[in-house]
Amino acid sequence: MAHIQLPEGLPGIRGPMAFSPETTKPLNLLVDQLLWSPDNTLSRGERELIATYVSSENDCQYCQAIHGAIASHCLGDDDWNLVRQVKDNPETAPISGNMKALLAIAGSVQKGGKHVSTDQIERAKTLGVTDKEIHDTVLIAAAFCMFNRYVDGLGTWMPDDPAMFRQRAALVAEHGYSAANPTPAFIPTPV
Amino acid sequence: MAHIQLPEGLPGIRGPMAFSPETTKPLNLLVDQLLWSPDNTLSRGERELIATYVSSENDCQYCQAIHGAIASHCLGDDDWNLVRQVKDNPETAPISGNMKALLAIAGSVQKGGKHVSTDQIERAKTLGVTDKEIHDTVLIAAAFCMFNRYVDGLGTWMPDDPAMFRQRAALVAEHGYSAANPTPAFIPTPV
Repeated sequence: MAHIQLPEGLPGIRGPMAFSPETTKPLNLLVDQLLWSPDNTLSRGERELIATYVSSENDCQYCQAIHGAIASHCLGDDDWNLVRQVKDNPETAPISGNMKALLAIAGSVQKGGKHVSTDQIERAKTLGVTDKEIHDTVLIAAAFCMFNRYVDGLGTWMPDDPAMFRQRAALVAEHGYSAANPTPAFIPTPV
Repeated sequence: MAHIQLPEGLPGIRGPMAFSPETTKPLNLLVDQLLWSPDNTLSRGERELIATYVSSENDCQYCQAIHGAIASHCLGDDDWNLVRQVKDNPETAPISGNMKALLAIAGSVQKGGKHVSTDQIERAKTLGVTDKEIHDTVLIAAAFCMFNRYVDGLGTWMPDDPAMFRQRAALVAEHGYSAANPTPAFIPTPV
């Protein structure tokens, strides 16, 4: 049972988001910009991998399940094997050197901002990673330290049916987060 | 020196915010809703105390300085003594029982969402703390686990002159965060 009375039937972050539409609007705008915006040299799948890895390090079951499913959807990782390998150890996963360098930075952000080292930054820059990619990685990792705590700090529940996550992943990948989590501000008024 | 090339002369979070206006807009909307909106049974000063305490636990010097200054401004704590006592130990600080219960929850969120215990929730509810107050406390604490990591994960700098923080605190307390950190979307186009 959640720590506060949340609307029934909504798993994970969707319960608190329905409870508090006024904070949900900026949270969805933020995650749309960070993970879904097409205007980024990191692909949607790569950004979702960063979110998934940080959620896994924070042991947030709901966030790593849904963002892992979205990453897999975007990357054509049908059996979720790539996501499992990244969560297990990014350094040995079959991803680019740039992504390994960025996931190392994300892993340090998860522990605390001061854990990011100049060596990690130099490693990334030597590979040609841009300042914007480093910025976005730090902010995605930081944002998931928020989302994970929001989900678990209120004691939300989650379903154990992978089909639900696959279905929802397809919805979010196509339409984005604001559209998939409508708040009153986003629901068109009936004419 | 920051880990990436940020606009010069802007301390703490203001450098990354100027670097990335598209993510700054939702971040300011979120913090305005959480800390500055008048529509809340927790006062602005109380909400700023939660932000300050979490920032202190995360050892983020910039965030605890600016939000501590705003809390002090809102609470008439001219010598910053109350803020110091809260950062030192909320249980012995001269604040309400409700605030002590909420800061205990915030302290657990800072460690990780699963650290929030049913005993902490029951303590708060027994005192008459509402579900919305618990929700907002969890999200404020979670959000500052993001902001603190954003500030420190990019290696930003901070000034050491307390007068700067007092001056900025007065500005934010009066006008809110979006107005104090204008992004291109918020700057009126010259006619």
